[in-house]
This record gives sequence, structure tokens and C-alpha cells, in this order.
Amino acid sequence: MGFSDVDTLAINTIRVLAVDATFHANSGHPGAPMGMAPVAHVLFNKFMKFNPKNPKWLNRDRFVLSNGHGCMLQYALLHLYGYALSIDDLKAFRHVDSITPGHPEAHDTPGIEVTTGPLGQGISNAVGLAIAQAHTAATFNKPGFDVVDNYTYSFLGDGCLQEGISSEACSLAGHLQLGNLIAVWDDNHITIDGDTNVSFTEDVIKRYEAYGWHTVTVEKGDDDLEGIAAAIKKCQEIKDKPSLIQLKTTIGFGSKQEGTHGVHGSPLKADDIKQLKTKFGFNPEQSFVVPQEVYDLCHKVAAEGAAKEEEWNALFAKYGEQYKTEAADLIRRQKGDLPEGWEKALPLYTPADPAVASRKLSENIINKIYEVLPELVGGSADLTGSNLTRWKGAVDFQPPSTGLGDYSGRYIRFGVREHGMGAILNGLAAYGTILPYGGTFLNFVSYAAGAVRLSALSQIRAIWVATHDSIGLGEDGPTHQPIETLAHFRALPNCMVWRPADGNETSAAYYVALTSKHTPSIIALSRQNLPQLEGSVIDKGIKGGYVLHEQEGADVTLVSTGSEVCICVDAVKELAEKHNIKARVVSIPCFEVFDAQPKDYRLSVLPDGIPSLSVEVMSTMGWERYTHEQFGLNRFGASGAYLDVYKKFEFTPEGIAKRAVATVNFWKDVPNIRSPINRAFEQII
Amino acid sequence: MGFSDVDTLAINTIRVLAVDATFHANSGHPGAPMGMAPVAHVLFNKFMKFNPKNPKWLNRDRFVLSNGHGCMLQYALLHLYGYALSIDDLKAFRHVDSITPGHPEAHDTPGIEVTTGPLGQGISNAVGLAIAQAHTAATFNKPGFDVVDNYTYSFLGDGCLQEGISSEACSLAGHLQLGNLIAVWDDNHITIDGDTNVSFTEDVIKRYEAYGWHTVTVEKGDDDLEGIAAAIKKCQEIKDKPSLIQLKTTIGFGSKQEGTHGVHGSPLKADDIKQLKTKFGFNPEQSFVVPQEVYDLCHKVAAEGAAKEEEWNALFAKYGEQYKTEAADLIRRQKGDLPEGWEKALPLYTPADPAVASRKLSENIINKIYEVLPELVGGSADLTGSNLTRWKGAVDFQPPSTGLGDYSGRYIRFGVREHGMGAILNGLAAYGTILPYGGTFLNFVSYAAGAVRLSALSQIRAIWVATHDSIGLGEDGPTHQPIETLAHFRALPNCMVWRPADGNETSAAYYVALTSKHTPSIIALSRQNLPQLEGSVIDKGIKGGYVLHEQEGADVTLVSTGSEVCICVDAVKELAEKHNIKARVVSIPCFEVFDAQPKDYRLSVLPDGIPSLSVEVMSTMGWERYTHEQFGLNRFGASGAYLDVYKKFEFTPEGIAKRAVATVNFWKDVPNIRSPINRAFEQII
Repeated sequence: MGFSDVDTLAINTIRVLAVDATFHANSGHPGAPMGMAPVAHVLFNKFMKFNPKNPKWLNRDRFVLSNGHGCMLQYALLHLYGYALSIDDLKAFRHVDSITPGHPEAHDTPGIEVTTGPLGQGISNAVGLAIAQAHTAATFNKPGFDVVDNYTYSFLGDGCLQEGISSEACSLAGHLQLGNLIAVWDDNHITIDGDTNVSFTEDVIKRYEAYGWHTVTVEKGDDDLEGIAAAIKKCQEIKDKPSLIQLKTTIGFGSKQEGTHGVHGSPLKADDIKQLKTKFGFNPEQSFVVPQEVYDLCHKVAAEGAAKEEEWNALFAKYGEQYKTEAADLIRRQKGDLPEGWEKALPLYTPADPAVASRKLSENIINKIYEVLPELVGGSADLTGSNLTRWKGAVDFQPPSTGLGDYSGRYIRFGVREHGMGAILNGLAAYGTILPYGGTFLNFVSYAAGAVRLSALSQIRAIWVATHDSIGLGEDGPTHQPIETLAHFRALPNCMVWRPADGNETSAAYYVALTSKHTPSIIALSRQNLPQLEGSVIDKGIKGGYVLHEQEGADVTLVSTGSEVCICVDAVKELAEKHNIKARVVSIPCFEVFDAQPKDYRLSVLPDGIPSLSVEVMSTMGWERYTHEQFGLNRFGASGAYLDVYKKFEFTPEGIAKRAVATVNFWKDVPNIRSPINRAFEQII
Repeated sequence: MGFSDVDTLAINTIRVLAVDATFHANSGHPGAPMGMAPVAHVLFNKFMKFNPKNPKWLNRDRFVLSNGHGCMLQYALLHLYGYALSIDDLKAFRHVDSITPGHPEAHDTPGIEVTTGPLGQGISNAVGLAIAQAHTAATFNKPGFDVVDNYTYSFLGDGCLQEGISSEACSLAGHLQLGNLIAVWDDNHITIDGDTNVSFTEDVIKRYEAYGWHTVTVEKGDDDLEGIAAAIKKCQEIKDKPSLIQLKTTIGFGSKQEGTHGVHGSPLKADDIKQLKTKFGFNPEQSFVVPQEVYDLCHKVAAEGAAKEEEWNALFAKYGEQYKTEAADLIRRQKGDLPEGWEKALPLYTPADPAVASRKLSENIINKIYEVLPELVGGSADLTGSNLTRWKGAVDFQPPSTGLGDYSGRYIRFGVREHGMGAILNGLAAYGTILPYGGTFLNFVSYAAGAVRLSALSQIRAIWVATHDSIGLGEDGPTHQPIETLAHFRALPNCMVWRPADGNETSAAYYVALTSKHTPSIIALSRQNLPQLEGSVIDKGIKGGYVLHEQEGADVTLVSTGSEVCICVDAVKELAEKHNIKARVVSIPCFEVFDAQPKDYRLSVLPDGIPSLSVEVMSTMGWERYTHEQFGLNRFGASGAYLDVYKKFEFTPEGIAKRAVATVNFWKDVPNIRSPINRAFEQII
């Protein structure tokens, strides 16, 4: 392929920048950038298709640094190729409010595709990006118009390979025959605990072959640039399998401590840096220096990338002439906007409509919206018949050779892989043309906590269809009945947790989830049937909380979510008839959205002067924020028919009434009862 | 091995019982029990060593049903062999308060080793059980005295194999060469979504070989009893590798729907049951029938098991004569008691002692107690140098052939496998001779949420050393800084979340964690240094919450945990000097333990008549239960030096004082301020 001294200089520049930045920050991971600089240079300089002036160009190749702690590698590349990331930004590495944080964050830094660092996430995101590419290509490409044909590249370390999430995602990637995915394993034999031989002696290559991947080994990853290039080229040619390149490298290459875990997570010492710079031909007295010929080399490639985008723009313009609808659709999707009027497809209900499980209400919605929202792509972690996530007549996303579907299919069979699914959803969303969803039981969204956290942090629109949302699932018992789950995800910033009470609230939940471009949603749905409630309308539901049942001169407010709202409504009658107590009912299907309403509104829902009681069949944690008293389940559930379980724990009109009476009595002597909405000061946001 | 018609009858009895119980419950999973009945019979009747009259016999073989939804298989076996599980218990399958819940629960049902159902957990527990056996054998066995030589058997399905947690645990099991572990894969090609070919086409056998496992395939798992027996025998002979038996079976064998996912998760129809019973020689009009010859066959094996235990008891008595100390230690360990006086090893501090990071305080404790608590066995998920989980001179638990340690070693290198580690801790604890701990960053305990949940549900003593517990970790940034994590695990029933403020509180946390036989603990520890506080003593710390700094006529109570307590102490001065406000300080290192104190005590800590402000650098969710106002971080953190990050979010004496002033002002007109400890009614427990 023809490499010269300038290539070596460019590689050493990356190494030296990583050394300088971690030294300057007195923190960080120089080892991986120094070891992976050669493959990074070969990939970016000879293979990657990208335009630093437009990091969002649709048909760019995606690059994911799964071993995100090595992010100085990526920041150095972004700088060298002319992304909006200056030398000063490199100097601000790991400083508060910089665009060069300790691990790459997609929403802050141009050129970062996904937020990585928590190990195993990046490679799994990459599987999602590759699925998205394959789907978008199958959907939009036309004869003579390969508008989407990019690759997804990912670097990963031993840690990523040990994490179960990557096993899940990579097994699926093999099944799906994703030939557009090329991963590079930094095989440096070092993790934080020392040599990988203390815990990681499996045959990784054999494992990936078992998954159906193509594999290739580069023995001399530190300097065999031709070998690296040949390996990448070979992988590009394999069209029906994802590829794993085993790249044998020396961590911290060039340091006096190279090849040890001493260079993994700490900056190099001053004298080590000196010898290294001298060895690499840099002035040991200077820092953050980039030789002009390195800039020239990189900027030339950047210019070629810009030219490629120009070509593509011309192609896409022609495409737009021939395929007007498709082109408009593709442009719209990238903005994250939904088609005008789509919301008319959302079903509405009246109290005369029959009682239906909210998982079924969710299915109704999916069956209505899939046609008007062609970007909706999703599936289930092997619970399709329980989550009800598949619309009638959906085509599976499958390699055509399986005969089970094709790549234009919009239904993904994730297998029993919740965490992998979560990370794949993040990758699907990050690609830019897909609005992804995934189904499992609410209790098992916890398996994917790491991925959900990154959806929220990186401001990704992804939807969890989380059915069997409480002890109401009944017989499966405590191992499957969530108790802590809602509190967990409600405490996660920028994550909407919905628990709709009926059909209109379910439509409201989907409306907000689908239109919130920068926030993931978990929609908790019942297994059991729920009646359509008087007072529930979509316009109120989208506020996250509202008065379902008003009552003048009320003695108490019952505040609830999901399947307990209808029991509260029955408790109102019980309270009136047996206890002469007037109760109003508030439904708060989503804390996060309710909290965002103006204070006046929130106070109208939860007013001063009246005590309140929350009712939800799981942990009461967090409910103290909204109510004076809490009726919940701060213990594990029970296995049995769901009505028996509800009865055991007194989630009946009588059980609620009993506690409402206690609430009224307990607060009756308190003058001027203050609503919990009133706070002494504002939270930092 | 000699199988007769009675064996076939016993197998069909298991099938019919599973069919009857799921039909009777109108719920459950008949398919797996029907498919796995042959291997279950062969294993229990010809190989397993157990005494149903003493399910806790130390040297019994362990059996783990990882595909826990098939629990009617296990309940049927327990009944047939004479465990304390009657036909009536089978009839009560999936009924409230039965000992036969929808998934097996270890703490409720005799003969169930670990709680399974959430997929992938059981096989990973089995790895823990096998590590525990190897360690206990290496520690206690003597020439001529193999007091511990049991096997661990586990059944698992396709779902368990797809879950990342099993990949993690099984990769480690291969590395550790656990020849005492034999797993049987129910290869029936069916999951809930249908044929496994929709998502699971990897070569499982090749993958397990890549992990270093021995594998064997039984082609005719439905009826080749000799083949099954030969496979198990072969696996028993392989001493340096765990074994996986690929058992090809027909799900729902005997049903008209056999081989389809129709029999996976729903009872059979009445007419199907009829034909099945007729086919198997049972009276189609009768239910829950066990032929006497089947009882006889099983009870004979049970009697042999009882005899084996008698033999073992004799052996152990002799062992006790020769190895008095070891025998006494083994007996003590099984009770879960700690050696008398062990707590004297816990370090105590005075305010004159230097400021130390609480992760380092934890290391001090481990260095002090490892000698007096020989049952303490643990490690880290590849963060040893950060978690500080290894005592000086610890020996690694490693196969001797690696030259890196041996099986008597008490330090486990888990690799970057948090979820697998969590499930292995559960298995280690369940074995009965080990008190396990595992280290990772607090943020990555979330990766293991599924396993932590099962620790809590199954009442297992396991300890998480969860360092880098907040934005105080600094430069690694938001991807690593927990926000929702404490709220999540505080909402989990029967889980102690500790966040100690200094040395004495860290010792208190360990004291309670180590002595709580039926509760897991997460000990959240700082990366940054913390001063030794005036007023902090271990006797108060073990109450979960106490008054650190009392002040007569106080205007406000500052309530805090961990690294923010010392900032609150500084804020007291700031408030007195600049605002003329008197503040008291309360430390609540553990909600769960504080909640268990008498109400009088809790009210003395958080009294009526005075407003309170909580201070903790993460989600405020849950703090409303204890305080009137909350200062926290309901957003993601930032990457930077930790003091800069604290300053950015105003977690400084000044920032706290500002909010304390706001709190005092906001509550000054409220007469008779009520402590949040007062509640209208008691929670259900």
C-alpha cells in the first residue's frame, strides 16, 4: 500500500500526543493509544471514509472506540484530521467542561459516534450501527444508487471481550452475517490486574469463529503497517461475515514500561517521556507538538473525504430526482422528525372500551404506527409473544440466505440478550435513520442497566417495551416481579419511565417517547387487563401527571400509576361509602415528564392543604417526593394468580381505603398542609 | 449401566407430574421438564450423591436448574426422592405461599441450592459452587480424608447460553479448569420466539471448547439412557476441565405439540394430556399419580444416599480426631458464624489519624481480618489495584498448573466480568463454607444488577467492595460516575447499601456486612481521601444512622453519607460564622440498617421540630424519606479533577450552607415541624 516515514511520524505523533495529554492531565490511559496508534493511522489514513467538516455525513464510515479509556487515541485522530477539536482541547483533556472528557462522549464531541468507556458497550453499539447500515441500505439503495454503503469499524480490548454484553452482541452479529462490521482486537495481553493469563486464557479467535465471524491475525501490530492494511482489506472483501482482526500489540509502545500494566492507566513519568520523545525524533523539551508534514498528510486525507462527500451529495441529488419520496424520507429521518400527522395513528379510547392489558394496548399502537413511522425498527429479547412487540405481517431483519426475512425487515430477533439488545438499540439510534425499540420483561431491563445508562447519558432516543411490569405478572413469582426497577430508572437522569394506566395513557407514553429526540424511554406495561378510565385523556397524559378524578372538598389525594390507578378509583367509592371520606385521584405515569411541568401546574395536581397517599405495587422509594404517605411493596413479591398476589399484599380497594383513612387521620391536626411540590431551593441541572 | 422399564416409568412419571402441575396451576412450563426427564432421572438415580433427609449435607452433589422455568422437573424429583415436598406441594405449584413457586427459590424449598429463573444465573452460580468445592477441598482435604469431593451439576437451556452472564462465568470456569463442574445443555432448538435458528446459530460446542471446556454430544437425549449415562461418566473422568454435555432433546416430549414452542410456556390442553397419559401407561382420568415402583426405585437411591452420608459422617468423625482445628472450623463455617473475637481485628480510628480514602480503609480492614476469617474468599473484576481488594501476600485461586496460585488460594481474579462475578459470589456463598466478596467500581455493580437482586431475594451473604463511589472519582467522568446507583440498590429489598464517611464507619459497615448471615451488602467507597471524624464511633455506625455532631437549639439538621459528611461538618462552621445558624450533623451510612432501628431511636436522630437537609452527590431519590429538603445531583457528573467537579456542582461548605439557609428560611413559619420518620401507617414486610 506504500507507507513512508511520514506514516511512522504520524503514528508517533499520536503516541506523543497521548503521552503529553495524560501527563498534562495527570490522569488517563496512555498505553492503549500508544499500542493502537499504528492500526489507527492505517485505518484513518488509508481506509476510513469521512469528512471532518461534516461529522454527520450519512454515508461516513463509523468508528467506535470500544476501549474508551484509550480516548486520547481518538481525540488525537480527530485533531490531526481537522475535526473541530483543537490543540487547546487536547490540553484540556480530562478538565471540567472540556470536549475531551475522560471517556468519549458522543453528545459533546464532534466525530464521536457513541459514548464508550464502560467496557463491552462500544463493540455492541457497533453491532447496532452495522445493523442500521444494512437495514438502511436494503431499504434505500437502488440500482446504481448505493447511497449507503459505509463500514463500521471498532477497536476493542481484552476487557471488552470479557464482558458478557459483547458476547451477546457478537453472537447476534455472526448470526446476522454483518459483513460491514470490522473489529480490531488490541491483543496486548495486559489488563489492569496484569497479564491476561490470570483470568482470560480462552481462545478468542476460536470463539469468534464459533459465532460465525471471519477472523484474521496480524502478528506484528506495532510496526507491520502493510500487514495491518492487508488484514483490513481482506475483511472488507468478506461480505457475509463480520470480521475480527487479532492485532498483537505492545501496550505503551515506546515507553520504558512498554508491555506492562504500568502504562495502562497512569501517565508516563517525566524521564520516560523524555526518552520516548527523543527516540521518536521529537524535541523532548516541547509538548503537544504536531509536525507540519503530519498535518499535511492527514489534511490531505480529510480533503479527499470532503471530496467523497461532494461526490455523494451529487449522487444523492440524482437519487432525489429519481426517488423523491425515499430521498425526502431519508433526509427527514436524519433530523429525527416524525412524518407530519403521524400522531393521528395513535389509538384513542373511551371508558366504554373493554379492559385490555397495557402490553396489548402497546401492541395496538405498534400495529397502528408501524406504517406511518417507517423508521421504527425493533424487536424483543426472545419474548415476542409476551411483549407483543411484533406487528402483524412484520418482516424479520435476517440475512436473506436464512430464508427467514431480509435486511429490509424491521423486526429484530435479539435472542435472550437484554444487555446486548440495549447497546444495539443505542447503536441503531446513533446511526441516524432508525427509531429503535426493544422488548423484554420490566424486571430484565435491569440486565441491561449499563446500556440504558448510556442511552440516557448520550441522549439517545430508544424505547424499551417493558411488559410484565409488577407482581401483577402473577405466577412467575418474585424472580420475575420488579420491586426496585422503577426507582432505579426514575433515579437515572434523562430517562423517562412510563407506567400508563390505560389506553389513552399508553398512547400518551408512546407519543412523548417517540417525539423526545434526546431521551430514552422505558414503558412499563401490565400483563393483566386494565379498564379504560374516566378522565384519562391523551392531552393530560403527556404532561406526565394529572388529575384523573377531581373532587371538591377532598380529604385526601390518591396518587398512583399503571395498574393501581383503577384500584384507586374503586377505593374512592369505598372511602365515600364506608368511611365518609372524599378522595381525588391523580395519575403520574411519568415522573420525569411531570417534573418538567411548570410549578403552578404541578401544584394544581398536588395542591397544598390536603394530604396525599401514593399507591404503587413496588418500592416506595422516590414517592416521598410527591406524596405525604406511601403504600407500596418494600419486599419481594409472591408466586400465584395475580389477584391472589394483589390480595395478599392488600392492593385492593379496601387495602387502599384503610391506608387512606390512616393518612387522613394522621394529617388532620396539621394546619396548612404543604404539598411536597414546594421546595426550599431548585435542584442543579 | 442397566436400565429397565421402571426407569422409563420413572421418567414418564416426571413428565406426567409436570404436565399435571402446570395444568392444575393453569400456568407454567411443561416443555423443558418433559424433554429433560430422561437425563434428570439418569443423573439423580445413577450418579448424584445426596440425602433427601439432610439437604444440607456438606459433601452432597449440587444440582442447579439454570433453566429455572422448568422447575416442575426439579420439584418432581424432590418429591420422588423423598425431600420434604409432598404431592400436595406439587398441587400447590405456583400458588401463593406454596414452597413450589413459579421459579425455584433456595430459601423456601428444601433441596433447592440456588434461586434460578432469570436466565444465565444458575449456570453462573454453578461455577461459583464448583469454585467453592475446589477451594474447600484444597483447604480441608487431607491424605486419606477426602471430606469434600462433590460434583456440581447444572442443567441449562438455550436462553442461558445466550445470556452474557453465562459467557463470563463459563469463560472463567474454563480458565480455572473446574473438573468438578458438569453442565447439561438441553439442546431442543426451541426458545420462546420459536426455532433457535431465528437468532442463535452459533456453534456452542466450539465456543465452549474455546473456553477450555470438555464437551460431549448425546444425539438421542429422549431415550438413549445408556448414552446419557456414558456421557456423564466420561465427564466425571475429566478432572482438569469443566464439561458441557450437548443433549439433543424434544421439548414437550410426548405431547401432540412436542418439538414446538407451543409447549414451552403454557400448560398442555386436556385432550393432549389424555393421549399422553394413555401413551405413557397412566390412567388418563387420574392426576398427580406416582406408581409405587417408581417411589420404590427412587427411595432406594435416597436410602443409599443416606447411607453414604452415614459413611461420610464416620469419615468426618475420624477426620475430627486427627484434624481437630480444621474440623471445628468446617463445622463453624457451615453455620455462618464467625470465629469468636474476630471483630477485635477491625481497625479503629481517632480524629488524629490521617485522612485516607475509604477504599484504602477497606483495604486496611481486609488486611486485618483475612487471617481471623479464613472463610473470606474474594477478588475483583480486574480492578485489584483500584478496588484495593487484595491483602498483602494473598495467594491466587488458580489451577496449580498455571504456576500462578493454587486452589487453596483465596484471591479470585474474576476478569472484567461483573455480572458473572456477582452470580459466582452467590454460588460461593451457597456452597456453605465461604464468605465471598467482589470488587468493582460502584457504577459497574449495575452491570451485575441481575445477580445482586438474586443475592437479596435468596438471602445470601455476599459483599460488594464498590469503590470510586461518586463524582469524587474525578477525571474518568460521567461514564464512570454513579448517580442512580445508590437509589437503585437502596430500593432493592434485603440489600444493605453502605456509604461510610470515615474509618470507624467503614469498620462498622464491614462488621454488619460480615455478621448479617442472610443479607448481601454493597459497600460504597471513595477514591478520594476522607478525614477521621469527631463523633464517629463504630457502635453508632452499626446502627446505620446516628448523630455525628449534636448542637443544642439547632436550626437545621444536615444529613449526609460518605465523602459529603466531612463537607457538612465544615458547613456547620460556615453556617455559624457567616449566617448565625446552628446546625447538627447526622450520618446515615446505611438506610436499610437505620430503618430497622426502633422508632424512638430514629426520631432521636431525626427529631421533630427542626428542618433537615440531605447532602449526597448523587440522585436525591429516596432522601425525601428522611429529610425535608435534598441537595444532590439529579444529572450526570463531569470529567475533571475531583475538587473541580465538586466545586462545579457546589458540593462545598459554602454550597451546602447556601442550601441550609434556604431550608431554614423555607421552614421557619411552619409550626411543629414533623420529622419524616413519622408515618401514618406501617409498611408491609
